[in-house]
Amino acid sequence: MNNQNLHPNRGGQGSLEPRQRRYTASQTPEQKPFRPQRKNNNKAYEQRRAPVRIIPLGGLNEIGKNMTVFECSNDMFILDCGLAFPDAEMPGVDIVIPDFSYVEHHKDKLRGIVITHGHEDHIGGLAYLLKKVNAPVYGSAMTIGLIKHKLEEHGILNKVPLHVMDARKTIKMGCMTVEFIKVNHSIPGSMGLIIYTPAGVMIHTGDFKVDFSPVDGERIDLGRFGELGNKGVLALMADSTNAERPGYTPSESKVGVSFEKLFTKAGNRRIIIATFSSNIHRVQQIINMAVKTKRKVAVLGRSMVNVIATALELGYLEVPKNIIIDIETINQYAPEQLVLVTTGSQGEPMSALTRMAMHDHNKINITPMDFIILSATPIPGNEKHVTKVVNELLKSGAEVIYESMYDVHVSGHACQEELKLMLALTRPKFFIPMHGEYKHLVKHQGLALEMGISKENIILASIGNVIETDGNSMQIVGQVPAGRTLVDGLGVGDVGSIVLRDRKHLAEDGLIIIVIGIQRNTNEIVAGPDIVSRGFVYVREAEDMMVQARQIMRRTLDGCTYAELREWSSLKTKLRDRMSEFIFEQTKRSPMILPIIMEI
Amino acid sequence: MNNQNLHPNRGGQGSLEPRQRRYTASQTPEQKPFRPQRKNNNKAYEQRRAPVRIIPLGGLNEIGKNMTVFECSNDMFILDCGLAFPDAEMPGVDIVIPDFSYVEHHKDKLRGIVITHGHEDHIGGLAYLLKKVNAPVYGSAMTIGLIKHKLEEHGILNKVPLHVMDARKTIKMGCMTVEFIKVNHSIPGSMGLIIYTPAGVMIHTGDFKVDFSPVDGERIDLGRFGELGNKGVLALMADSTNAERPGYTPSESKVGVSFEKLFTKAGNRRIIIATFSSNIHRVQQIINMAVKTKRKVAVLGRSMVNVIATALELGYLEVPKNIIIDIETINQYAPEQLVLVTTGSQGEPMSALTRMAMHDHNKINITPMDFIILSATPIPGNEKHVTKVVNELLKSGAEVIYESMYDVHVSGHACQEELKLMLALTRPKFFIPMHGEYKHLVKHQGLALEMGISKENIILASIGNVIETDGNSMQIVGQVPAGRTLVDGLGVGDVGSIVLRDRKHLAEDGLIIIVIGIQRNTNEIVAGPDIVSRGFVYVREAEDMMVQARQIMRRTLDGCTYAELREWSSLKTKLRDRMSEFIFEQTKRSPMILPIIMEI
Repeated sequence: MNNQNLHPNRGGQGSLEPRQRRYTASQTPEQKPFRPQRKNNNKAYEQRRAPVRIIPLGGLNEIGKNMTVFECSNDMFILDCGLAFPDAEMPGVDIVIPDFSYVEHHKDKLRGIVITHGHEDHIGGLAYLLKKVNAPVYGSAMTIGLIKHKLEEHGILNKVPLHVMDARKTIKMGCMTVEFIKVNHSIPGSMGLIIYTPAGVMIHTGDFKVDFSPVDGERIDLGRFGELGNKGVLALMADSTNAERPGYTPSESKVGVSFEKLFTKAGNRRIIIATFSSNIHRVQQIINMAVKTKRKVAVLGRSMVNVIATALELGYLEVPKNIIIDIETINQYAPEQLVLVTTGSQGEPMSALTRMAMHDHNKINITPMDFIILSATPIPGNEKHVTKVVNELLKSGAEVIYESMYDVHVSGHACQEELKLMLALTRPKFFIPMHGEYKHLVKHQGLALEMGISKENIILASIGNVIETDGNSMQIVGQVPAGRTLVDGLGVGDVGSIVLRDRKHLAEDGLIIIVIGIQRNTNEIVAGPDIVSRGFVYVREAEDMMVQARQIMRRTLDGCTYAELREWSSLKTKLRDRMSEFIFEQTKRSPMILPIIMEI
Repeated sequence: MNNQNLHPNRGGQGSLEPRQRRYTASQTPEQKPFRPQRKNNNKAYEQRRAPVRIIPLGGLNEIGKNMTVFECSNDMFILDCGLAFPDAEMPGVDIVIPDFSYVEHHKDKLRGIVITHGHEDHIGGLAYLLKKVNAPVYGSAMTIGLIKHKLEEHGILNKVPLHVMDARKTIKMGCMTVEFIKVNHSIPGSMGLIIYTPAGVMIHTGDFKVDFSPVDGERIDLGRFGELGNKGVLALMADSTNAERPGYTPSESKVGVSFEKLFTKAGNRRIIIATFSSNIHRVQQIINMAVKTKRKVAVLGRSMVNVIATALELGYLEVPKNIIIDIETINQYAPEQLVLVTTGSQGEPMSALTRMAMHDHNKINITPMDFIILSATPIPGNEKHVTKVVNELLKSGAEVIYESMYDVHVSGHACQEELKLMLALTRPKFFIPMHGEYKHLVKHQGLALEMGISKENIILASIGNVIETDGNSMQIVGQVPAGRTLVDGLGVGDVGSIVLRDRKHLAEDGLIIIVIGIQRNTNEIVAGPDIVSRGFVYVREAEDMMVQARQIMRRTLDGCTYAELREWSSLKTKLRDRMSEFIFEQTKRSPMILPIIMEI
């Protein structure tokens, strides 16, 4: 297997002298680790002394593919297993998943996988992992519902034990115990996790925000976080996504207020709202407004249809009868009787909204009788896609609401004041900022410093770092393989740095192929040189240059001795260099030059 | 020449019935077009009746490559000639310039080129145009200074007459006259243009903002705009870049206030400020703060060095003696005695700041003794580059100021209230929003509607549209060739849609080459099939598949009749299809398949 360590971590922190990180203050009673009851036999005593190791395999110094391993003695469990989306440096790649090799090598220790919530960056790698290791998976009903879908697509649903966990329920992972704790986020059934270990109690918030008026009425379990803080929390791992943003993230219900105004503004026009398919509370608010304004709701986009079906089935979405209609029947209704809920809020090229904008949707035709709301903020990297969709929708005469001033979107992640609240409630001895690029982790560190946690007790880690604690100190003690595995079509990991380098080279400048046929034994050139190019210039308009190139190759070959014609590898280099030189001189470009010698 | 009309304009508006756009209200005295004095002879009478045509060739429905042609009778002049930067859909392309073919075909009418200001999106296409047509170029001293540099690089400085124009100065362009008018923007010497035509007075704002406290004290000439409004303006063309943003753009001097606070915050650390090289007023404020805090200033980055040199030479920058030091001498100073001004605020891969961040700069090493200010906002599309640079700078222990809350950047473009102010002062009969994507033009249209201009009198145009006016009405009457020309290395226009399509295909999935040698006359296969791939899979790990692919090609050839082996074009198709099928089955990928048959 190719580990695809394309960006191996520098491991700078791993090389710190242990004493620089060691924390030796004596424990006050409050700080004494809280442990679930355990029989006082020799084994338990041993386990209590065994260090606990936290190994992030994704989600640090990056956005996406969140995954963390917890280990103690002979037990291991995994928290989340997400994917990341490829960037411009990874052409042709479909998704990016963590390098699982560490888990594979220790799969006998694996007791289970706990999932905080059902977003792709937390569950998208799961099916790939479960093809390599066996383990039960635990999550909320919504999370498990979405995972079921994924495993089914991969044809492995039957081989994986799935367990629905309610908040405050616990599950044993060998010598560790995990408890689910309710948090708010932009998908229902989001959980944080409390991890009871021999070294002490740890908390991983998962993705979270503090919503005092959540749409489903289920507020984050602040009381439990506070209770744990009172008893003593050894370590907090918390979501850093919004650590740069001051203040509080507004409540999801604020979007409902905006919808109320906008539904009035829409008047007798058809309303089309694009949002993230997993944001069921957003969909709930759209449905509530539809009921209020006597509109029917039709759903577009494969993922939107799937997630809504799952949410309906599991009771996360409350819809009065006859509100949701089949997309096929929308022509039976006047514009003012309709709301369409669709995917495509990020301008994704194949999404329903993009296809509508490009006049490429077989059921929806955008007209000036459409009032379109983009209920989302472009994720960095998607701005140009979104702008293109907005422009095209406007050209069809529709009104489009897309600016932040309309308050049609709120984030699902905690801003600085909420992050401080979490630190204040849990009062951890050690703090590990999770989920974010380095700049987010640094900002989150800054907040923890403000809250009185000393710098030595804050760990800015990288993926693959082994963070070890015995309950008294915590430090990075080593490094395991970690990185990214690229998925392209059916291939998992077969696109590596060499293939990507070639793809980028081909994309930038195209290629020129030189083919010659050489007679075995005589070393006579019996065919070619032929020149073929792709992605370089439009050959019909550069015929002269191509003729010249062929002549130069011919002359280069003519100038070769008998011995040179036998040494194919150096002959290829010679042809490549000469061609490269000529082409650069003519065009200031450096296409990939590919000499092919055929033996006749 | 290949016109490269990759995105031909839909020309939807051009097909409007003229009567839909015709405006026939009688002219009130205020509305009567103001004209420069002219002898009352027959020729002048004819010219007065001659319609004026405005032909945007760039900058509408796009950001960048601004260029507009004005025509009347046998006279034509050009306003700006910019470039645009390629997007992800144009791999390998260096810059994008307008399609000049309309101007080339009418070059005998061309009287001159006026330039509003020296930004790349207004001057970057000029050298390419001036290789095809001859015309004098007019602009402010700063603008001409920057143009000189460009023409020198292209080796055509000597053949182009350049004329420095001060504000309120006029120049005759045949039957039209152009007057320069002072505006504020993020580069010194920015001008709007007043165009006196036989049909009436037109105003083109260029890029502008209203700065009541500009750094150089030179406020936008609001009085002149108002005076023209009083006399009657036929048409206003105005900058739509910030038409989405409510309120006013803050004054550039606000950034100076922020710098004051940040220089204090920096304490005894070295200060590094990255900004746009052309923002000389920003640089002036940095220099002022350096003087105040007894720091020396060193300049990094080729374009920053060039622009500062031009500004110093022309007196746009006031620097006390011995403040600017050579970068080679910085080691003679302590960190608290230094400010470095650098390019790279957009995270451009080759820029000085990016190289510093990546430990790749031969003179600057980033340490915790650095206090770095990114005095810019990422342009859409650059966010990821900027984030990468920030992360790397932070990893070196530097403090980095990059968030909007620090007020270290203001826009150079007018926000909604300023745009309304411009409409209020000039009170144009017709309004053409310029410079922006469709969404910006629509927002600007909305503002004009609020200001009482009727919808029929607002023209939302596309590039290539011919907008004609006789002083009474204004409408789109036709379409000329317009689009984009891609520049890649020395090639101007030789990368077209086919080449780009191939590049994208190669980037996404790579390629597989199948080579066979066929004996002339006998049609016997005497060499191959050989398979070569690039950018597809790492072949050493996919040997089995490549062996299988070769066998399949061999079998396909074996199954060919004598006749089939003679028909190379259909033989190639057969090989391609079979290979494509096999590869997709194995990998769910579609690399480019390139069969090459050599005649022996």
